[in-house]
Amino acid sequence: MLKALAMRLMQIGLDAYVVGETTTPSVEKGDLLIAASASGETSSVCMTVQSAKKQGADLVVISASSESTLGKIQTPDITISSATKFSTSDASIQPLGSLFEQMLLIVFDAAILEMSQEDKGSNDDMAKRHASLE
Amino acid sequence: MLKALAMRLMQIGLDAYVVGETTTPSVEKGDLLIAASASGETSSVCMTVQSAKKQGADLVVISASSESTLGKIQTPDITISSATKFSTSDASIQPLGSLFEQMLLIVFDAAILEMSQEDKGSNDDMAKRHASLE
Amino acid sequence: MLKALAMRLMQIGLDAYVVGETTTPSVEKGDLLIAASASGETSSVCMTVQSAKKQGADLVVISASSESTLGKIQTPDITISSATKFSTSDASIQPLGSLFEQMLLIVFDAAILEMSQEDKGSNDDMAKRHASLE
Amino acid sequence: MLKALAMRLMQIGLDAYVVGETTTPSVEKGDLLIAASASGETSSVCMTVQSAKKQGADLVVISASSESTLGKIQTPDITISSATKFSTSDASIQPLGSLFEQMLLIVFDAAILEMSQEDKGSNDDMAKRHASLE
Repeated sequence: MLKALAMRLMQIGLDAYVVGETTTPSVEKGDLLIAASASGETSSVCMTVQSAKKQGADLVVISASSESTLGKIQTPDITISSATKFSTSDASIQPLGSLFEQMLLIVFDAAILEMSQEDKGSNDDMAKRHASLE
Repeated sequence: MLKALAMRLMQIGLDAYVVGETTTPSVEKGDLLIAASASGETSSVCMTVQSAKKQGADLVVISASSESTLGKIQTPDITISSATKFSTSDASIQPLGSLFEQMLLIVFDAAILEMSQEDKGSNDDMAKRHASLE
Repeated sequence: MLKALAMRLMQIGLDAYVVGETTTPSVEKGDLLIAASASGETSSVCMTVQSAKKQGADLVVISASSESTLGKIQTPDITISSATKFSTSDASIQPLGSLFEQMLLIVFDAAILEMSQEDKGSNDDMAKRHASLE
Repeated sequence: MLKALAMRLMQIGLDAYVVGETTTPSVEKGDLLIAASASGETSSVCMTVQSAKKQGADLVVISASSESTLGKIQTPDITISSATKFSTSDASIQPLGSLFEQMLLIVFDAAILEMSQEDKGSNDDMAKRHASLE
């Protein structure tokens, strides 16, 4: 879901990168890291958030749990009620983090829609930035 | 979205692979290829579907458009009404294929939920198959 | 090997992207596409080169075979004598494109070394651009 | 380089996966994790090795440095003399871990060559397992 967000951010004209992809540069003060983990226990996410925090990046953390390793590093900015790989939830009969991922996508797409309207960016502008080798 | 589906398919106990990832084996008769492109013009998707068809794989094709290069190779099994990078749609004010991707995720998660209930697979079974190095 | 090259190009301070990664922008006139296929028959590579050519990008093509689908689209700029998935070679007992990949890496690293010396870039400059979230 | 190794391992008929790819299953006792970091300080590699060790997996660790965070978790099985992002080396004028990566590729390809000869596997057998959608 975060990759879908990064792609849309690039398409509305912002510099966006995905942690772990080939040409992602060094994180710096002034960068914003957006991180999500339903359980808040995904160790690569915890480690990345901790490291970005030390390096002075701004953070947005999204989780289904605030009582977690991730929650202790950084209180989640957005909490989504959902099952995780460690717990079930009354919010849905769906397994694991399915509901969490659906909500992430909707939240991100809503943010992109709002941002693209502010900028008066059109479908055409975004289509021009859409990858043309695919 | 197809990666999210492949991950869940693996977690309910099926052999699933993503085209283009490192250890994805050769496609064979008896394999099922699931392909999606909102516009039906994503050339890598068209090429993959055509090649898998020649190699005798079964196909499920999902698109927002049946009048497309992809639609001519294989009539879409599921058609989702959505804007694409080439056209806008009355179905939503969202840009590009956003609605298409949201619908894909919901359709896939619904299929996974039904498949996991048939197998009487539980959240616990799926959690055990969840990647433990992440 | 091309990902290793893209990473080093970024580290010596150039804008570099990998086709198919999340935030890779639209290719444009003035961009340089570097493509490699031992057999010259990898269909995604052929399609990408053809599409980039139409969109006006400059091309560097590397292959073990000039009598190939890729070779017909664009005569290889660098030819490396090696076995491929379709042919064996006297050049080495190694299977498939192993020799081709080793030679690619050496050629790319030699180019990077030369480029980094011209720019008087040091190990320190490159280390600063090295991904810091990994 | 580890992805190149995983691809060849799959092609000689072994079950191989890349940590972090979509359908990589849970690691288990009996699995072998192969990890490499020139500096021995890549935090995702350190974390993965530590976690796999706890989960009972066998380990092969390759590094340019034994006096490192990674070296303290697990003494490197193979040490390659090379510069890293933190240190230069007399072994080569090449920047960062370039020499390390070249040596990794050669060591892995030599291992694959030996394994494929033991199994009397031929270029043809491997070509059949080579990804056919690419």
